[in-house]
Formats: sequence, C-alpha cells, structure tokens
Amino acid sequence: MSRLYIVGSGPGQADYLTQAAVHAIEQSSDVVAYRLYLDLLGQLAVGKVWHPSPIGQEVMRGRLALDLAVQGKVVSLISSGDAGIYAMASVIFELIDKTDNPAYRIIDIEVIPGISALQTLSSRVGAPLGQDFCTISLSDLLTPWSVIESRIHGAGAGDFVITFYNPVSKQRDWQLAKAREILLQYRAADVPVILGKNLTRDDESVQISTLAEFDVETVDMFTVVMVGNSTTRQFEQWVYTPRGYDVNGSEST
Amino acid sequence: MSRLYIVGSGPGQADYLTQAAVHAIEQSSDVVAYRLYLDLLGQLAVGKVWHPSPIGQEVMRGRLALDLAVQGKVVSLISSGDAGIYAMASVIFELIDKTDNPAYRIIDIEVIPGISALQTLSSRVGAPLGQDFCTISLSDLLTPWSVIESRIHGAGAGDFVITFYNPVSKQRDWQLAKAREILLQYRAADVPVILGKNLTRDDESVQISTLAEFDVETVDMFTVVMVGNSTTRQFEQWVYTPRGYDVNGSEST
Repeated sequence: MSRLYIVGSGPGQADYLTQAAVHAIEQSSDVVAYRLYLDLLGQLAVGKVWHPSPIGQEVMRGRLALDLAVQGKVVSLISSGDAGIYAMASVIFELIDKTDNPAYRIIDIEVIPGISALQTLSSRVGAPLGQDFCTISLSDLLTPWSVIESRIHGAGAGDFVITFYNPVSKQRDWQLAKAREILLQYRAADVPVILGKNLTRDDESVQISTLAEFDVETVDMFTVVMVGNSTTRQFEQWVYTPRGYDVNGSEST
Repeated sequence: MSRLYIVGSGPGQADYLTQAAVHAIEQSSDVVAYRLYLDLLGQLAVGKVWHPSPIGQEVMRGRLALDLAVQGKVVSLISSGDAGIYAMASVIFELIDKTDNPAYRIIDIEVIPGISALQTLSSRVGAPLGQDFCTISLSDLLTPWSVIESRIHGAGAGDFVITFYNPVSKQRDWQLAKAREILLQYRAADVPVILGKNLTRDDESVQISTLAEFDVETVDMFTVVMVGNSTTRQFEQWVYTPRGYDVNGSEST
C-alpha cells in the first residue's frame, strides 16, 4: 500500500484543522513537514515517524514524501495553510509529472484542503473578501518580476481585492512598495489595507491602514497584506467588501 | 451576552468542518442557516433552536441572526464554504454598517473561515491553484455585467488561474460562454478547464476538459468552473500549475 496524503494544516492554530486532516494524520505512519509545523501538530504527531525538514527545501521534502510512500508507508505531507495554495501539492504533482520514476505514478494520493492565510486574515477583520478577489505572490525567486508586475496591473484593472503572499524576504524589500505604486494608478489612496502578522500565533497582530499610508517597513516575511477594492469599507474595527444587497429594503433578492 | 458566530461550514461534507466551527456550533443556542446546510450538520445541530430559511433570502437571514444575538442568544449563522467568500459575512457587516440599529454594534462577533468550493475542487484534481489565482462570480444580480467583464479581462491579462462561481442560473445562461470568448483572447485553446459539480455530495462529478472544448451546456448552478493559466498542465487524472522549481536539479530553490 502506497498512500500519500497532502494535508493542508491551516494557519497554525490546531482548531483550524479540518477533521479530514486530523483523520489523515491519524492514519499515517510517517509525517513529513517543515519543523515548525510538526511542533504545531502536538499530540496528533505522537507515535508517528517524524521527518522534520528545514524551510525552503520544498523539492527535497516532496521527494522524501514520495519515496516513503513508494516504500509502502502511509505518509502525511504537511503543508501550512491550504496544501494547494503556494504550497506542497503542486511540488508533488510536478515531481510525478516531470521526473522519470514510474513508481511515483502508482501512489494513491489524496489532497486535503486547509484554511489559507487570506481566509484567516479576512476572518479577523470581517469580510474584505466579499467580492471577487485574487492572490499574488511577490516572490520573484521562481516567477520573473515582469510576470508579477503584469498580474498587479491585471488585478488593478479588474478591481479585485488583492492578497499579497510573500510580500518581502530578507533578500527582497522593494516589491511591495512598487506594487503599491502600481495599484495607486487604479484605485483611491484611501482604500483599506490590512496587514496580518503571525496569524493565529500568540503574537498575532492585525493592522488596518490605507493604500497610501500603510507602512511598508512594518511588513516582514510573516505578514500577509490585503488591499481592498474600490468598494471596500471600514467602520470601527471592521473591514468588508459589500456584495451590493439593498440592506435597507423590505426584501432581499 | 450577545454573541454571533459567522461560521463557514465548508462544501458540505462534515469532515471538512474545522474544529473551530464545530466548537462554535456546540456553544450556540440558536443556529440560522439555509435549510440544506442544517441537514448537513446532522448531529451537531441536535438540541439547538433551528432557524431554517430559504435560499436567496440573505438579508432576511442576516437580520434574523443579528436580532437573535441582540436578544441575548448565542447564535451560529451558517454559511456554506468560507463565510467570507461570496457568503454571509459581508451581508452581516453591511447590515451593521448601513442600518440604523445601535444594538447591532455591541454584538460580540467572530468569523470562522471554512473550506471554499475553489479549494475543494482544486484538491480533487491535484494542484491547479499552485500559482496566482482569482475568483470571479458570474452572477450579474448584484454586480453590473460591465464590471464582471472588466474583471475577466483583468484576469486574462494577468494570466491568473480563474475560478468562476455562480457560472449560470435558471435566469442566466450566456455569461459563461462570453467569459470563455474573452479568455480565448488571452490564453491558448488547450489550457485545462475543470468542472466540479455537487462537490462532496454523493453525486459529485469532476470533469477535466479544455478552454475551447468544455461543454457549457453541462454547467449548472451547482457547478464550479476552474480555468488554468498558461502554465497549467494535465497528466492522467491530475491537473497542476507548477510553481517553477527545478524538480530534476540536485537541490531545490
């Protein structure tokens, strides 16, 4: 039996795991994950063979998970957030598709989705994702900046609510400021911007600001940045993007 | 105590509920939901005061949840998928913001995210959301078609993987064909298209086709339509959008 679960573990907080994710991990003999995520699983990982691996070694981690499954183990490969969103699932399928290992093709694979960072951040401030939205990773490690820039223009022109993943890193610090500059060509200076740092951790912080005024310097690699569209509104501690119902009418549509 | 949980219940399958959602429902005295979602909760809803309501009455359902919380109940308002994505959370915050009811402003509100349909569909076929993506609702009930059309152009120009929600309804049948026509200006005829119908239900079906060839006639109001970007690949039963790692290299990144 060659079985691989690619499990989205959510943002970190154990109670954001789905029950399907819990069941997959329970059924596994081996768990492969970036070390920090293993710690977060706590009791769930007890009795499993742990395969902690350092961050940034996605291909190596994917190969390890596939090779363990080929050996007949039941493996959970843990990916934070949603396994399919900027995470390990695409690495696994790229490995199967592009490496010449027929054994990989007979592994029984199940992908289990999880709560992604954009959903966690949205829930903290209300409903900024209430209308059409997009996600853009600002990391140019694997994607040329010209492609990223065309996506920012597309998102601006389409008036999408935008969530930026990987806004900065130790080696990258100018992309977020450039993204703001581009977006100011399309939307007003006062559209709400939400910065969520260390979401679901003890030191979580969420700030609400505006497109013109949010402080790029406070954004680090553990921050998710969300930019409202032209209709996104803030009141008190809440931000939401209205769907457009007539809330004062006598009847809904 | 005035408390309102806005709970994303996922696509329907009980084991896609997060533990946070389960806890919120357990703590509630009253549950407000579209009737079908209540049925899906099963045992969890036992012993609660049920407030089933018909589909399409979002504003009425939102007011009911807020009014029950004002009366001192602990209320769970159930929204399928993620409560923040084309769902009830934005209705609630629009009601609080725009109606003149100060009692609504002192309700203790918590939004609990859930697995949205785009995540469920992605998990069924591999990892089509592995790169930047967007969601577009094709319903012009609340959004003018000109705005929707500009979003399709923006998504095409930005080469986003696109998930269409509300692709058709009983009253609307031409928007999806028009969306395809627009996207064919930007991407190749053979990019993968995934159609997911009745996801997580007993009669779930998932079809993989291409942008030029997918059959609009098979799409109904319970179908989610996902269109790959220029790099999305299909092999066997899988579809994924590569992040761009050198999977045959000796080392990652």
